[in-house]
Amino acid sequence: MSFKSDIQIAREANKKPIQEIGAKLGMTSDDLLPYGHDKAKVSQRFIDSVQGNKTGKLILVTAINPTPAGEGKTTTTVGLGDGLNAIGKKAAICIREASLGPCFGMKGGAAGGGYAQVVPMEEMNLHFTGDFHAITSAHNLLAAMIDNHIYWGNELQIDERRVVWRRVMDMNDRALRDIVTSLGGVTNGFPRQTGFDITVASEVMAILCLATSLTDLQKRLGDIIVAYRRDKTPIYARDIKADGAMTVLLKDAMQPNLVQTLENNPAFVHGGPFANIAHGCNSVIATTTALKTADYVVTEAGFGADLGAEKFMNIKCRKAGLAPDCVVLVATVRAMKMNGGVAKADLGAENVAAVQEGCANLGRHIANLKSFGVPVVVAINHFAGDSEAEVQAVGDYVETQGSEAILCKHWAEGSKGTIELATRVAEIADSGASQFAPLYKDDLPLFDKIERIAKRIYRADEVLADQKVRNQLKEWEEAGYGNLPICMAKTQYSFTTDPTRRGAPTGHSVPVREVRLSAGAGFVVVICGEIMTMPGLPRVPSAEAIMLNDLGQIEGLF
Amino acid sequence: MSFKSDIQIAREANKKPIQEIGAKLGMTSDDLLPYGHDKAKVSQRFIDSVQGNKTGKLILVTAINPTPAGEGKTTTTVGLGDGLNAIGKKAAICIREASLGPCFGMKGGAAGGGYAQVVPMEEMNLHFTGDFHAITSAHNLLAAMIDNHIYWGNELQIDERRVVWRRVMDMNDRALRDIVTSLGGVTNGFPRQTGFDITVASEVMAILCLATSLTDLQKRLGDIIVAYRRDKTPIYARDIKADGAMTVLLKDAMQPNLVQTLENNPAFVHGGPFANIAHGCNSVIATTTALKTADYVVTEAGFGADLGAEKFMNIKCRKAGLAPDCVVLVATVRAMKMNGGVAKADLGAENVAAVQEGCANLGRHIANLKSFGVPVVVAINHFAGDSEAEVQAVGDYVETQGSEAILCKHWAEGSKGTIELATRVAEIADSGASQFAPLYKDDLPLFDKIERIAKRIYRADEVLADQKVRNQLKEWEEAGYGNLPICMAKTQYSFTTDPTRRGAPTGHSVPVREVRLSAGAGFVVVICGEIMTMPGLPRVPSAEAIMLNDLGQIEGLF
Repeated sequence: MSFKSDIQIAREANKKPIQEIGAKLGMTSDDLLPYGHDKAKVSQRFIDSVQGNKTGKLILVTAINPTPAGEGKTTTTVGLGDGLNAIGKKAAICIREASLGPCFGMKGGAAGGGYAQVVPMEEMNLHFTGDFHAITSAHNLLAAMIDNHIYWGNELQIDERRVVWRRVMDMNDRALRDIVTSLGGVTNGFPRQTGFDITVASEVMAILCLATSLTDLQKRLGDIIVAYRRDKTPIYARDIKADGAMTVLLKDAMQPNLVQTLENNPAFVHGGPFANIAHGCNSVIATTTALKTADYVVTEAGFGADLGAEKFMNIKCRKAGLAPDCVVLVATVRAMKMNGGVAKADLGAENVAAVQEGCANLGRHIANLKSFGVPVVVAINHFAGDSEAEVQAVGDYVETQGSEAILCKHWAEGSKGTIELATRVAEIADSGASQFAPLYKDDLPLFDKIERIAKRIYRADEVLADQKVRNQLKEWEEAGYGNLPICMAKTQYSFTTDPTRRGAPTGHSVPVREVRLSAGAGFVVVICGEIMTMPGLPRVPSAEAIMLNDLGQIEGLF
Repeated sequence: MSFKSDIQIAREANKKPIQEIGAKLGMTSDDLLPYGHDKAKVSQRFIDSVQGNKTGKLILVTAINPTPAGEGKTTTTVGLGDGLNAIGKKAAICIREASLGPCFGMKGGAAGGGYAQVVPMEEMNLHFTGDFHAITSAHNLLAAMIDNHIYWGNELQIDERRVVWRRVMDMNDRALRDIVTSLGGVTNGFPRQTGFDITVASEVMAILCLATSLTDLQKRLGDIIVAYRRDKTPIYARDIKADGAMTVLLKDAMQPNLVQTLENNPAFVHGGPFANIAHGCNSVIATTTALKTADYVVTEAGFGADLGAEKFMNIKCRKAGLAPDCVVLVATVRAMKMNGGVAKADLGAENVAAVQEGCANLGRHIANLKSFGVPVVVAINHFAGDSEAEVQAVGDYVETQGSEAILCKHWAEGSKGTIELATRVAEIADSGASQFAPLYKDDLPLFDKIERIAKRIYRADEVLADQKVRNQLKEWEEAGYGNLPICMAKTQYSFTTDPTRRGAPTGHSVPVREVRLSAGAGFVVVICGEIMTMPGLPRVPSAEAIMLNDLGQIEGLF
C-alpha cells in the first residue's frame, strides 16, 4: 500500500524513450514523429503499412453510473493493459486526451491514478501534442469564414439569425457562453448573437475521432451544417470553402499519439469528444492502429455504461466496423454504497446492506451490456477501506446476474493487482464468445432509435417529445439523414434524466428538449435536460494554486 | 536564375536531422526537445550551461519603409546567415515565428524566399511548436479568471467598465473586435463590452519575448495591469492569482525553437510580437542563446528601420543588455523606384531618376541608424528586372551618405549571393567600430522620449497630444513607470503618420491619439493613428484555396 500522491508516483516513473515503446508495436524511429522524448505521433505511412495485419482483440472498459466516490475507469483501463502485458500478452491501451480548460477549474488528471497511470502526466493535462489547439483553430477558422462571407456580400444568402456554428475555446469561460459579435460599426460586420463552447464540444472534435483518413476527415468537415437560409435550406462548410484549410490545420492532429504507462507499456492517447453531445471515445484511427499492432487493445468510453458504452457500441463500433470481444464493467464498493443511499461522508463505515441495495445499478448495466452480445466481467476496483464482506457482497450479486466479478488492486500494486482480471479477460476475448450487434439497425426511424435506447438501456416507459422535435426528425429523414445513429445527451449520474435518481429506477420518462444534427460527425444529438457546453470556473479555481516550484516542476495541477 | 516557387524549393530541401543542426552549436541530442525530426526546442539546462561562454557578434537586419514592391528583410537575414557560414564563420540566425491567422487571409510565408529560406516552411506557418497556442491559452486564462473573480463577488472591486484585458485568438476574425459578453442571465456573469485581438498583439507575447527566464516571465506576467477600480487604482494579474498558472502554460513556449536554413545552418525562430503596439523582435532568450553558441548572430526587426530598428535598439537591446555590432539596411531598386513615385505596375521599366529620388528614404534611415553609434551596410536585394544603372545609382547614393552598398543575390543563389556582404559585415563586426547607445536615457520624462523619437527618427517638427494624454503620462511617471521605454505604434509605410507619404518627408507633426501602459512587457505604447489589432479576412481569403494535395502536401498556403 502506497501513500504517495499520483503526481509523486508519476514523477518517479522510469520512463523509456518513446522509440522503445513504439518498437514494442513494430514501429521504427522513422515511424514516430517525436514530441519531446516521451511523446510521439505515429506516422501515416506506418499506419498504412499495418493495414494487412491481423486484428487484435478489443476490450471495452466501462463503468456504473459515476458517483462522487469515484470509480477509476481510466485507472482500470491502464491497470488491465499493464496486467495483460504482465501475463505475456502483447497489449496496448487507447484512452482520450484531457481537456486543458477544466484543469484550471478543479484539480484533476485524466491519466489514471496510483500505480496505474499514463505518463508524462503534466504534458497530457496541458498542451500535449497540440491536437486540441489544432481543433480550436480549425473550428474558429470556419467561424471566421462564415462571418467573412456575410461581410463581403453574403452570396450564399445565409440567414444571420440561423448561423448554428459557434466558436470554441479550450477554457472554462462562462462569459463567452452567450455574446453579441460584430459591434462597433460597418467595418466589423453584422452584429449577431452567438457564443463559445469548450473545444471538446466542437463537432470538429467528434469528426476527428470518427474519421478514418485525412480524405474522410475533409469529407466530414465539408458535411458540417454551419447555417441555414431563410428558406431553411442548409449551408455546409463545403459551401464556405473551409474544408480544405481545416483539414490542413488538422493534418498532424489526425495522427495518433503514443505515450507509455508507468510499466512502459504502449498507450495511445488521442482525441477527446464530450460524452454528452458527442460520443465520448478516443479516435477511431488510434483504436484501429492499436488493433493492427497489438494482440489485445483495452479502451474506455466516457461516463457510465448507459451513455458511454451505448455510444461506443452504437456509434463508434457501428461506424468503424469494430466489434468488442469483452466488456469490463468497473464498480467500486464505495459507489455501490452510494447507490444504496449512503452519503459520501459515511462511506468509511462498513455497510453490507447498502452495498447489496446499490448493486441494482450494477445489475442493470450488466444486463444492458449483455444485450449487445458481448461477455461482461465486473472489475471491483479496490479501495483501502473496503471490507471483505462488502467485496464479497458485490461478487455474490454479480454471480446472481450470470456474470463474474474480480477484485483488482492496480491502484496500489500496478499490474500485480490485475493479473486475475487480465487472465480472465484474455480467455474470454480469445474464446470468440462475443456475438456483438448494435442495439438498432441503421434504417430504424430516428424517433424509434431514441425510444429503443430509452426503453432498452434506460428502462424508461416512454420518450416525451413535442411535435416540433418529431417534425424536425422527420425532416432530417427526408433530407437523407435517417440512417444516422443517435447520440444521447443526458445526465451521466442516473439511468433517468434526473441526476439525483441513483440505483436502477423504473417508471420514468425521457423528455427530449432539443435535437441537433451533427452532419459531419454523422449522428443526431438528442438533448434531454440541461447540457452545459461551456463550463465556468469555481469560486477558487485551481489555477490560483498552479505554479512552477523551485525545481521547475508543476505544482497544483493534480 | 531559378523559376521554382518558394514552396517547390522548400520541398526539395535536403534537411538534416535537427540533432545535427544543434551539434553545430554544441548541443547534444539530450539538449534538444524534438518536435518531429526537423524542429526542436532548446533545453533550459543547455541554456544555463552556456552562460559562461563568450558572446558572439550581433548583426541587425532592418529595412527601408516597406512598399508593395517587397524588400526581402527575412530573406536577407537568412541569406546573410548562410553567407557567413559559407565563408567559414560560425553563424546563426534569429527570426520571429509566423502568426497562423493571417496565413488564411493572404498567401504568404514568413520564412524567407527563393534559396534563402528556413525550413520546414509549412509547419513554421501553421502550428509550429505550439508557442502561439500556449500564449493564446495563457492570455485567455487570465481573461476567464478576471470575469470569474467578478462573478464570485468581485472582492478586488474591479470596475467592470475598466477591464482593459481583452481576449485573443490567432485568427483574422473581425467579428470579434468588439463584442458584448456574459449575456443570457445570472449564471453567465455581468454583461460588458470587450473584444478579441490577434494573438501576436497580446502583451503576453511581448512579455515572452522580453523575459530572460521563467522567473522573470512570471514576475512580468504578474505585473500586467488587467483592470482598474472606480478610484482608478490598478489591478494586476498577480492580484487575480493568474501569474503562476500562466507561467505553467508558457513553460515550453519559453524555450527557443531551433530549425535550419536550406543550407543546413542553425536558425532560431522564437516569438513574434506585433511591430506596432509591441516591439516586433524575436525573443531575448533566443538571441542571447544564439550569441552564446555562435560567433555571429544575424537577427531582424519588424517593419522599416524607423519602427523596427528603433525599437530593437531602444527596447530590446536596452532591456536585454545587447549591443549590435553592425546593421544591415535592406533596400531594393524596386522600392527605391516606388519611393521615387513610380506605381507598382510600372516597376518593370528602367527609371534611374526615380531610383535616385527614392533614395532619400534610404538616406534618412542610414543617418538614423548611424545615430545609434552602429556601422551601417546597405544590402541591395537583387531582383531579376533591376538594371545595372539602377543598381549603380543606389550604390552611388549610399556612398554620398558615408556608407557602403553591396549587391546581394541570395534569393537566386543562396549563400553564393551574399559572400561579399557576409565578408564585409564580419569585418565590421570584428572591428569593434560599433559604439552603441540608445537614443534616450531611462530617466528622460515619457513625453520627452516621444519627442526625441519623433524629432530625431521621424524628423517631425512636433508631437501633438492633448492634455489627457499628457496627464496620463504624468500619472504613470508618478506611479513609478517613468523609466520605461516608449513603444511607438504608427504606420510602417512612412516616416510620418500618413501611410501615403513616402520618401523622406519633413514639416510634419506626430499626433498621439492614445497611450497605453504595458506594465508587464515594460513599455509605454504610444498610438499615432489607426492601429488594427484584429485583422479581417479579405473577400477571397487564401483559406479557400488551402488544401492537401494527393501527395498529402499542403497547397495554397504560399
